[in-house]
Amino acid sequence: MFLRSLLVLLFFVVAAQRSLADDGYRLWLKYDLIPDAGLRKDYQKAAGVIVSKGSTPILKTAAGELQQGLQGLLGQSVPVVSASKKGQGTITLAVDATANVSGQPLGKDGYSISTRSGNIVVTGQSESGVLYGAFALLRQMQTRQSLKDLALTSSPRIQYRLLNHWDNPNGTVERGYAGSSIWKWYELPERLDPRYQDYARANASIGINGVVINNVNASARYLTPEYIEKVAALAGVMRPYGIRVYMSVLWAAPKVIGGLSTSDPLDPKVKQWWTDRTNEIYKAIPDFGGFLVKANSEGEPGPQDYGRDHADGANMLADALGQHDGLVMWRAFVYKANSNGDRFKEAYQEFKPLDGRFKPKTLVQVKNGPIDFQSREPFHPLFGAMPRTPLVLEVQITQEYLGFATHLVYLAPMFKETLDADTYANGQGSTVAKVVDGSVDKHAISGIAGVANIGSDRNWTGHPMGQANWYAFGRLAWDHTLSAQAIAEEWTRLTLTTEPRAVRTIADVLVRSRDIYVRYTTPLGLHHIMGQSIHYGPEPWLASSARPDWTAVYYHKADAAGLGFDRTEKGSNALSLYRPEVQRQWQDPKTCPPDYLLWFHHVGWNQQLSTGRTLWNELCTRYYTGADSVTWMQQQWAAVQPQIDPELHADITGRLQTQRKEALWWRDACVLYFQTHARQPIPAPFAPPARTLDDIKRLVMIYQLR
Amino acid sequence: MFLRSLLVLLFFVVAAQRSLADDGYRLWLKYDLIPDAGLRKDYQKAAGVIVSKGSTPILKTAAGELQQGLQGLLGQSVPVVSASKKGQGTITLAVDATANVSGQPLGKDGYSISTRSGNIVVTGQSESGVLYGAFALLRQMQTRQSLKDLALTSSPRIQYRLLNHWDNPNGTVERGYAGSSIWKWYELPERLDPRYQDYARANASIGINGVVINNVNASARYLTPEYIEKVAALAGVMRPYGIRVYMSVLWAAPKVIGGLSTSDPLDPKVKQWWTDRTNEIYKAIPDFGGFLVKANSEGEPGPQDYGRDHADGANMLADALGQHDGLVMWRAFVYKANSNGDRFKEAYQEFKPLDGRFKPKTLVQVKNGPIDFQSREPFHPLFGAMPRTPLVLEVQITQEYLGFATHLVYLAPMFKETLDADTYANGQGSTVAKVVDGSVDKHAISGIAGVANIGSDRNWTGHPMGQANWYAFGRLAWDHTLSAQAIAEEWTRLTLTTEPRAVRTIADVLVRSRDIYVRYTTPLGLHHIMGQSIHYGPEPWLASSARPDWTAVYYHKADAAGLGFDRTEKGSNALSLYRPEVQRQWQDPKTCPPDYLLWFHHVGWNQQLSTGRTLWNELCTRYYTGADSVTWMQQQWAAVQPQIDPELHADITGRLQTQRKEALWWRDACVLYFQTHARQPIPAPFAPPARTLDDIKRLVMIYQLR
Repeated sequence: MFLRSLLVLLFFVVAAQRSLADDGYRLWLKYDLIPDAGLRKDYQKAAGVIVSKGSTPILKTAAGELQQGLQGLLGQSVPVVSASKKGQGTITLAVDATANVSGQPLGKDGYSISTRSGNIVVTGQSESGVLYGAFALLRQMQTRQSLKDLALTSSPRIQYRLLNHWDNPNGTVERGYAGSSIWKWYELPERLDPRYQDYARANASIGINGVVINNVNASARYLTPEYIEKVAALAGVMRPYGIRVYMSVLWAAPKVIGGLSTSDPLDPKVKQWWTDRTNEIYKAIPDFGGFLVKANSEGEPGPQDYGRDHADGANMLADALGQHDGLVMWRAFVYKANSNGDRFKEAYQEFKPLDGRFKPKTLVQVKNGPIDFQSREPFHPLFGAMPRTPLVLEVQITQEYLGFATHLVYLAPMFKETLDADTYANGQGSTVAKVVDGSVDKHAISGIAGVANIGSDRNWTGHPMGQANWYAFGRLAWDHTLSAQAIAEEWTRLTLTTEPRAVRTIADVLVRSRDIYVRYTTPLGLHHIMGQSIHYGPEPWLASSARPDWTAVYYHKADAAGLGFDRTEKGSNALSLYRPEVQRQWQDPKTCPPDYLLWFHHVGWNQQLSTGRTLWNELCTRYYTGADSVTWMQQQWAAVQPQIDPELHADITGRLQTQRKEALWWRDACVLYFQTHARQPIPAPFAPPARTLDDIKRLVMIYQLR
Repeated sequence: MFLRSLLVLLFFVVAAQRSLADDGYRLWLKYDLIPDAGLRKDYQKAAGVIVSKGSTPILKTAAGELQQGLQGLLGQSVPVVSASKKGQGTITLAVDATANVSGQPLGKDGYSISTRSGNIVVTGQSESGVLYGAFALLRQMQTRQSLKDLALTSSPRIQYRLLNHWDNPNGTVERGYAGSSIWKWYELPERLDPRYQDYARANASIGINGVVINNVNASARYLTPEYIEKVAALAGVMRPYGIRVYMSVLWAAPKVIGGLSTSDPLDPKVKQWWTDRTNEIYKAIPDFGGFLVKANSEGEPGPQDYGRDHADGANMLADALGQHDGLVMWRAFVYKANSNGDRFKEAYQEFKPLDGRFKPKTLVQVKNGPIDFQSREPFHPLFGAMPRTPLVLEVQITQEYLGFATHLVYLAPMFKETLDADTYANGQGSTVAKVVDGSVDKHAISGIAGVANIGSDRNWTGHPMGQANWYAFGRLAWDHTLSAQAIAEEWTRLTLTTEPRAVRTIADVLVRSRDIYVRYTTPLGLHHIMGQSIHYGPEPWLASSARPDWTAVYYHKADAAGLGFDRTEKGSNALSLYRPEVQRQWQDPKTCPPDYLLWFHHVGWNQQLSTGRTLWNELCTRYYTGADSVTWMQQQWAAVQPQIDPELHADITGRLQTQRKEALWWRDACVLYFQTHARQPIPAPFAPPARTLDDIKRLVMIYQLR
């Protein structure tokens, strides 16, 4: 009778469980029971008890997270105790200021996981290091690695690993495609959405240690006592996960909320105002991270309004921070509306002369490329050009120019392309990554920022595969030497399936997806030909806008002769901003890699490329094969269906259908439009689009309607 | 060994379950196992098998929903079969065109649930009726009613029971406080979010049978083939739940997307364009519901742009619908910027003369009150004034003027206040409800619309108690004779707890909450004194805006003499728009109910009211006792803690804290501001606010900052 009741109960519980499809909320921290009983048993033996040497908040988090993960993975309730016990199966968590690897110190956030006398010991020089070690140990089990004779050590190469949220106080997210903001400003500080903690957990698990909570197009609200209290409440959730909170600030705040008549950074009242605000913030948030500033950019106010420069502004804020342990991150994303100029050069021209002017703990934050998060850009020429200034690399995780939430595009290959690009600043091997991590110029501080793709959608990122981009950003921020392939496989195992063939198939799709996207949208170095304002779909015909550099024709310069922006010395000479070694790679259209060709050259339609095809033929080939590759992605995804949760599989299947549809928009829009200049037929074997350019213009314009 | 494995498995499954707190997603359709084993057994006996007489889509839905509900409630897998079986425990679902109650036909959507030969039979004249009956039967069990000798019949009093979504194509929701839109336009039609079906299920369970999917400030997108296909995909999810899809349309669409030079409703090309679009829509969506139109209102285009009137516009659309079974709902929410006028009168003045001009299947949609969804308005004077036109009552479920998602305000008492208001149009008892349901003027069609409070937040409505407002709207749309109290108790039992004392406590809080909100924000008939544009927090001092009727002073008219808008014949004479019997209730400030006093009278600060206090004293008393009543709500909520899911309880506890804080804003802002006119001290026993008017102005202005 007992057994029968139990079975009945079990049936209903399981039935209820089954009805809960995998909605993606748990991200890569699923901790589902390991089905392999043998492996589970091995792990269970190793994980009999957690010994936490200390009870500070982050150590408590480490122990709690480990306990929760083990509970799920092993189906075993693992006690947390404060003193070590004899016998097998102990996992010890301990801060050890002397922790090192072969004499090399681990660094503040590094961890070591080792086996000592048959037990596992997780140490770090700081609590955060131990927390990262705990997540790394869980990852070992999630990815089914052995726990025998562990000797894992890892230290982050970059100190400040930040997400930038472009979230507005009204709950919208600029360039967000995953619902609304996760921050509920109207509810704070009284109500703390449980989601805040889940957000912190996810970030900590991949080593992210800072969060800029609001849009760089900033509201002054955050500097008011009312909002400082709200931000402090969020900081209270983040703190036990080793995450510090930062703010974007509105330069005009002293006028807007301070009642001053100026925001001049050299005005004593302005300085005092910022000092007072900063002190007030630190009173509420003792571990506040600092300020991010977008100034004199795209209409935002800034120090130039008063005849001062960016360094004047940044240094004033650095002074305001004073003895507090905070940073100023000053964005270099600036450009003026100048139809005769080249936006490519503007940030360089404004910031390069300021090198050496910035005070300590002030960093300049530079986008990966010179224009604006296009799907492929040459690395920003400021990298390697400001040796006396620590530069934060800013990449975009949200897919503003990479297909919103309907295109599967894994961004790690794009991040890696920038990180691995050689600036030759200090000889060969002076990669962007090494400029950013401080090793080229021996900077004491280093930072990297990713514009978050996180929103209130149940699965956090809109496209379920967008989770991989959040994950990859964190992993690369920690260790930029990891490969895109390795991260793809790791994420897939944690998130989707551990079945080896499916893992390979999915990782293959992920790794190839960004190149496929580039091919069907902006092959051969085309850039900025997307739909006006919303940045959705193609609009290569866009010829007038509020500013010349917001049109498409400014960038592609298609004419009867050819296509592309001449940035050689015959043209804008933007190429000269790079070191000679870099210039040599790109300066000759015959040897310039096709992927960068139209970034730097105006190429004749019938010019033969290194691929053996003429420009026109190569362009069409890439658009057609790119769009067809989406079909390949669909086939690969269909093949892994048995290994994937059905609801999740259906979700991505639907999005891939949309991606295929939109890839065909791009292909048809671009080949038909460029054909009006090239005046050549679509080359065999490709069938000309069945629709006209007007058809496709009408179609994509629908998405521009109010 | 088997038992042990089973126990282990059970433990983990249950553990996993426990970690899933009640996040509100399941709304009032939780179907948790009934804990009372005796009752469950009774129900189980009655629900052995479902016999579905037919297999049309909506009947299938009815059987499926019943099966799913019984599975949860009874822990019993109930088979669905097509032919009846002998023996006990059969629930038969059948369409019966002759279904009636004592000879009275049930009407299209009505249902009957009866016990015949010991078995339960659910019938309706239509499939939808059976579906509604199935949900009603589940509700019997959810609320623990007996299933013995059932004889339940119910028919909706209003035919068209609609939600209006003010959702924009970019995913934002105008006046939405629950995240972003649930419609994922970029993903449609290829991907159907599983949430669409859960949305349809929830609506069908309370009798809602139509959904206007987009904002009345409409985009032309929806009339394009691209979007018709997306809307058709949504309609496909709604159809099996008996829900029809409607669109808001942009009047200028023939120009914006049709390439025409005019949108003149009398232009033959315009007529043809709308006819073609309508035919195209019906080809994709054969059960399309029709159009909702906001025209010549708040800057929207309309027929008046061409010297035509609202009837010309509505009739043209009715002609375009032609033989299709669709409606035109034309909104009466119009007003001009006229500082010398009274916005109260404008819709009446424009629409009353059009009575009789509207073609069949054209309805005029009228907000509950003459201004704009204020927390208490006298009923709109158009009700009862357009006997030849069916009027749709439009109420707002989203809390635009009722505290967003941080104030617990149960709206059924407000809806009921309008529904039960007597227009005296056709003698005593000609309530708004009876005007709307068509019984006063013998209209063949009737409709009611609620502006949805639904968004992408996990719990759908932001404030968990906002679910009660969605629920109450549906229940009152079905049967406006239900009491606010009864609906509150029913919803609480379905959603929060069935423990009788807790149900009473919560229902008491719900029923009193709206009056409490009115007291601390706009007592005694004050209106439209909220924060500019965002409509959040108090701003009674607002004296200039883009339009005079967007200020606060336009409405409260505070001066040294007194307070309130004189709408008697000495003033704007808006009162004259009502029948004499109604005028008599409100025309004398001495006998006008205090709740409506300042709607119609400018009252001296020292005037003694029927309450025995002077206006100033009564005003202060209501602000103070109103704000203090939030503390009472907090206490009541604390008392039911043991009966409520912990995460949910904490959520509402946090929001109540915010509500208390904001109630104090309102109180302090309003008593301090009105005191500048009244020039009297805050009366005993109330302590004057500790802050100044400037303090509170600064505080609430923060929320107006960009």
